[in-house]
Amino acid sequence: MAAPTSCIFCRIAGGAVPAKFVLQTEGAVAFLDSGPLAEGHLLLVPKTHAARLEEMTPDAVAEITRLLPALARALLQVTGAEGFNVLQNNGAVSGQSVDHVHFHLIPRRSGDGLGYRWLAGQYPPGRAEDLQERYRRALSG
Amino acid sequence: MAAPTSCIFCRIAGGAVPAKFVLQTEGAVAFLDSGPLAEGHLLLVPKTHAARLEEMTPDAVAEITRLLPALARALLQVTGAEGFNVLQNNGAVSGQSVDHVHFHLIPRRSGDGLGYRWLAGQYPPGRAEDLQERYRRALSG
Repeated sequence: MAAPTSCIFCRIAGGAVPAKFVLQTEGAVAFLDSGPLAEGHLLLVPKTHAARLEEMTPDAVAEITRLLPALARALLQVTGAEGFNVLQNNGAVSGQSVDHVHFHLIPRRSGDGLGYRWLAGQYPPGRAEDLQERYRRALSG
Repeated sequence: MAAPTSCIFCRIAGGAVPAKFVLQTEGAVAFLDSGPLAEGHLLLVPKTHAARLEEMTPDAVAEITRLLPALARALLQVTGAEGFNVLQNNGAVSGQSVDHVHFHLIPRRSGDGLGYRWLAGQYPPGRAEDLQERYRRALSG
């Protein structure tokens, strides 16, 4: 997809808008989130524009996510956090605020008040089997 | 790392414990989360044991994440959700409940009450620059 010139992450990746870069590769940039959920909160962003993950090719996703282990180790070393979340949102309803694929790396500490709202449910009898069958059909197409 | 026989995801990936599989490849399995946050909530799990993302090689991460776009398209088709979160937790403090790397794909709809607790802050003057420098040093090592 062509990069909309209004896309802030395209402009950051292209060097037109400054950011606190920590890593730059041929295909991706990583920089500090300017509105951090925790100190050292990072964003990993592909240089090629795609609004959502399902629009990306497997190769493009693989290329960017290859950087996650090194970024994660750096995050743990720099922040001293005990753990971290990797979060990638798709669609305004999911919390996505910039329509250009990005992976959050969010340092976590005990009592930080962050995390995902874990409202787990259960499937009624037969429902999981029905969903499984529909997924298998969708994935075999 | 050798697979602890007590690891529930190793046992699922190896076929010793049943799950509602939707996709199986040489290196990974995807199945319905049995305690779903939303109907159609999926887990993507590498067959080779690693407790946390920073322990995986770039190749191993790339191999498993290549499956995300197809799983995402299937999720949107099967559930009719407007969007979705990809979430990967590392460490008990982050919400990780099984010590074997797994990616959640969580369907999202307006008003579902899910999502990440977005408690954004700001860096005091000079702090982001200091973190950037420390990240760069950590990543150049």
